[in-house]
Amino acid sequence: MAFEIPIRIYWEDTDAGGIVFYANYLRFFERARTEWLRAALGLGQRELAAKAGGMFVVSEANVKYRSPARLDDELLISAAVQDAAGATVMIEQSARLRAGGSVLCEGLFRLAWVDAAKMRPARIPQHILEKLH
Amino acid sequence: MAFEIPIRIYWEDTDAGGIVFYANYLRFFERARTEWLRAALGLGQRELAAKAGGMFVVSEANVKYRSPARLDDELLISAAVQDAAGATVMIEQSARLRAGGSVLCEGLFRLAWVDAAKMRPARIPQHILEKLH
Amino acid sequence: MAFEIPIRIYWEDTDAGGIVFYANYLRFFERARTEWLRAALGLGQRELAAKAGGMFVVSEANVKYRSPARLDDELLISAAVQDAAGATVMIEQSARLRAGGSVLCEGLFRLAWVDAAKMRPARIPQHILEKLH
Amino acid sequence: MAFEIPIRIYWEDTDAGGIVFYANYLRFFERARTEWLRAALGLGQRELAAKAGGMFVVSEANVKYRSPARLDDELLISAAVQDAAGATVMIEQSARLRAGGSVLCEGLFRLAWVDAAKMRPARIPQHILEKLH
Repeated sequence: MAFEIPIRIYWEDTDAGGIVFYANYLRFFERARTEWLRAALGLGQRELAAKAGGMFVVSEANVKYRSPARLDDELLISAAVQDAAGATVMIEQSARLRAGGSVLCEGLFRLAWVDAAKMRPARIPQHILEKLH
Repeated sequence: MAFEIPIRIYWEDTDAGGIVFYANYLRFFERARTEWLRAALGLGQRELAAKAGGMFVVSEANVKYRSPARLDDELLISAAVQDAAGATVMIEQSARLRAGGSVLCEGLFRLAWVDAAKMRPARIPQHILEKLH
Repeated sequence: MAFEIPIRIYWEDTDAGGIVFYANYLRFFERARTEWLRAALGLGQRELAAKAGGMFVVSEANVKYRSPARLDDELLISAAVQDAAGATVMIEQSARLRAGGSVLCEGLFRLAWVDAAKMRPARIPQHILEKLH
Repeated sequence: MAFEIPIRIYWEDTDAGGIVFYANYLRFFERARTEWLRAALGLGQRELAAKAGGMFVVSEANVKYRSPARLDDELLISAAVQDAAGATVMIEQSARLRAGGSVLCEGLFRLAWVDAAKMRPARIPQHILEKLH
């Protein structure tokens, strides 16, 4: 079962078309990845950088917009590892309406582990990698 | 007791200074006002416009920045009516750290009721006004 | 030659990692598409909806993050039609450093024409389509 | 004469009310302050931190919302020093329509100079202060 967090749509998320602005789903997906990592590793983003000496950065994003979300909507944002090895993790995510569950937006993200000191791509530390499966 | 909602600080909220970007507290304050109205009126923003024929818009914002919030911080955002009469509501809000409770940011907001059809300021409907005290 | 607009990186665009937050490139790409349409059609977004009875919405986004942008950087954001037919337009975009020109981020976007009244996908009006090639 | 920069309103700036979301004027005002400092000091934000060892942070914001801006609008955002002494600068700003010039939003901001190393308020370096008048 995929990890999920609830998201409420506020004025800040919408645009003059009356729907959620397309870039904002990437904000929602990032929140879900952060909470998923917090649950999987027991670490926040700052602790991760401090203790594991690095962080995950998005190197590729593929997003499909199926149907719009609107003001006041409650969404469920999922995050599930598709593959994790070497220096990268592939994560599948979706945004669906809590009421009814129809999928509004789907994303596939390639995350690269970056050494915090050198700001260079590096292999994911083994103790992190083990907890991602 | 003031109405409060919890907010987690994510990457999207921070800036290159390592702290929450100053405009984003206005996003947090708006979320708290929306949830406070949902609790007080039992209406979301779209229902409010549909059923009461109007909405509240911010006509003045006064914000004091005391101390910065950082990535992963958990904040409590409050909303409390200071005064409500005629066409305006004055709302006091604060953002404080859940851990320790120190106040990071305080805001005082003047909200004006706007007729949804005419997009003109108007008196707050009596049945709304009664629920705001 | 691709259409390009300059973008300056401000505090609002960066995150606590000291770089531009990944979702914000979608904001930059949207600005460039809007200015490209203004140049190609001689219409702003509101005029387009009013005169052509519809608007373009993003149905798919593919973004590759090559290298980070930082505070104060000047970027050039491009937009070029790859294909336009029926109800969809494929647009290639990139964000590169004005100084040196190295490409930081690339995007491929599928835009769908949506009838403003029905909010339904529809064929791109012929007089619009002709101006996109 | 006040320093001014032009701003175009894009989809990202608007909300489901069809107008610019109130927090976004603080983004526009920050852009204008950054460009004003670049013009006055000949320094970007990163150079300022590197060469002067500090930065300006907003400690208080007072914003009055007069009339809404809409998608495609062109605004002029001004920045003018009202007072600068010791550790603080008071800056008056406005957002007005380029067409017609009516003022949509006004802001008064208190900026505090912060020592970059200690992240503590400090006196504004004399060579900076002289250039702000």
